[in-house]
Amino acid sequence: MAKLYIIKVGGNIIDDESKLSSFLSAFASLEENKILVHGGGKLATRLAEQLHIPQQVVEGRRITDAETLKIVTMVYAGYINKNIVAKLQASNCNAIGLSGADGDAILAHKRTHPVMDYGFVGDVDAINTKLIGSLLQQNLAPVFAPITHDQQGQLLNTNADTIAQELAKGLSSDYEVTLIYSFEKEGVLLDIDDDGSVIAVVDPSSYKKLKTDGKINSGMIPKLDNAFTALNSGVSKVIIGKAEKIDQLVNGKAGTTIVNE
Amino acid sequence: MAKLYIIKVGGNIIDDESKLSSFLSAFASLEENKILVHGGGKLATRLAEQLHIPQQVVEGRRITDAETLKIVTMVYAGYINKNIVAKLQASNCNAIGLSGADGDAILAHKRTHPVMDYGFVGDVDAINTKLIGSLLQQNLAPVFAPITHDQQGQLLNTNADTIAQELAKGLSSDYEVTLIYSFEKEGVLLDIDDDGSVIAVVDPSSYKKLKTDGKINSGMIPKLDNAFTALNSGVSKVIIGKAEKIDQLVNGKAGTTIVNE
Repeated sequence: MAKLYIIKVGGNIIDDESKLSSFLSAFASLEENKILVHGGGKLATRLAEQLHIPQQVVEGRRITDAETLKIVTMVYAGYINKNIVAKLQASNCNAIGLSGADGDAILAHKRTHPVMDYGFVGDVDAINTKLIGSLLQQNLAPVFAPITHDQQGQLLNTNADTIAQELAKGLSSDYEVTLIYSFEKEGVLLDIDDDGSVIAVVDPSSYKKLKTDGKINSGMIPKLDNAFTALNSGVSKVIIGKAEKIDQLVNGKAGTTIVNE
Repeated sequence: MAKLYIIKVGGNIIDDESKLSSFLSAFASLEENKILVHGGGKLATRLAEQLHIPQQVVEGRRITDAETLKIVTMVYAGYINKNIVAKLQASNCNAIGLSGADGDAILAHKRTHPVMDYGFVGDVDAINTKLIGSLLQQNLAPVFAPITHDQQGQLLNTNADTIAQELAKGLSSDYEVTLIYSFEKEGVLLDIDDDGSVIAVVDPSSYKKLKTDGKINSGMIPKLDNAFTALNSGVSKVIIGKAEKIDQLVNGKAGTTIVNE
């Protein structure tokens, strides 16, 4: 099977123009099939402030009301997505920016919850592997904004980590998929203040021990849990590491590689 | 050659939710190959006002400074484009939203002018007919926002009428192209206040006479000049008419059809 890298880049990188540029050059130089999924960054929050649209955050999650959906659609699918695509084009990477609505790439439904109303937040139902496969075959690099749709005309705000994971799972029947979560840290660290303390490899038994010993930073646990879910769904490898080091991450020369045994 | 309809929809329709819905249903029901090009509408101007970004207009043309480019990228390529795509998806039309940067679909250069600085405004250099052809072959309906790029990483604001025309010219070697400018009027009118005064057909000699007799509204002259330019570059037919009547426009049962003799 052909190799495919699905790379999520986080908000902190997107907010930093020079880090973003280094990351995009590194991404552009990857020669295999590749997909980029980007998060939102602080720009949406800033725009909401400027427009005096109050942002409700409940238990760390932003509630997406109609006005907020409009903002994230403008910022994520418009400003951030098109600027990333234009910069990749300048680095000879034939990027094509997509939301989940485009070509029905990612179908979702509005989240239902017994108590909370998250607003226009989407949980992913299906990945259009046929469309994405055909774009990859044309040597295009899809760049996904974290916006999906419900096929009824409604756009939905969807977590970028989840989109990356669902793409990886969906495409793993056609490709040997490596899923990379890239961010500002070197990888999974034993000591959160020491970039040198990267754990090179995590497998299910070492993960269990690290958790029992309380050596994993709590913010990293959902990422690792998701990584193991992805591996159990056919994804070959999950790597967590520094955005600018994509070329070393793919070779296992930097970052943390998560494997199933 | 296969038929291809390239349909430009203007700003006034985009600002009117119910007119836009009728238009999109009519567009979705067209069975042949089709491309939609949308303009901007008033939303960008309103957002600029809310953000206190002064809009400079010189001789009827908006100057696109860096802040204005950010706004039009958000509004045109983000909000408007993705909402149109989501609504078309709901009408069983497999739309895919694109800016000119996506897949290097439309290459442009920053406009140079001996006196004026239009800012980040792009004039079109090339249409990626290979990419667009391959999307059409997959039964996708490309939906273009009026944003292009210069392959150097710079996005550019580009007139939607021009984009529609350049797409029509570029694709006319592979398709029998009908270019439709759809807007709020019934077509080219003899009496601008009388929707019943539509001129059904305009050819070069009748156009000359209409101009000499002063019977053409001055706002319509650039559109008609562009129409003849398109016809001279291989486009089969140009039609001007009411957005909600797409199905009648394509059959010549409404609107004004412009032909070369």
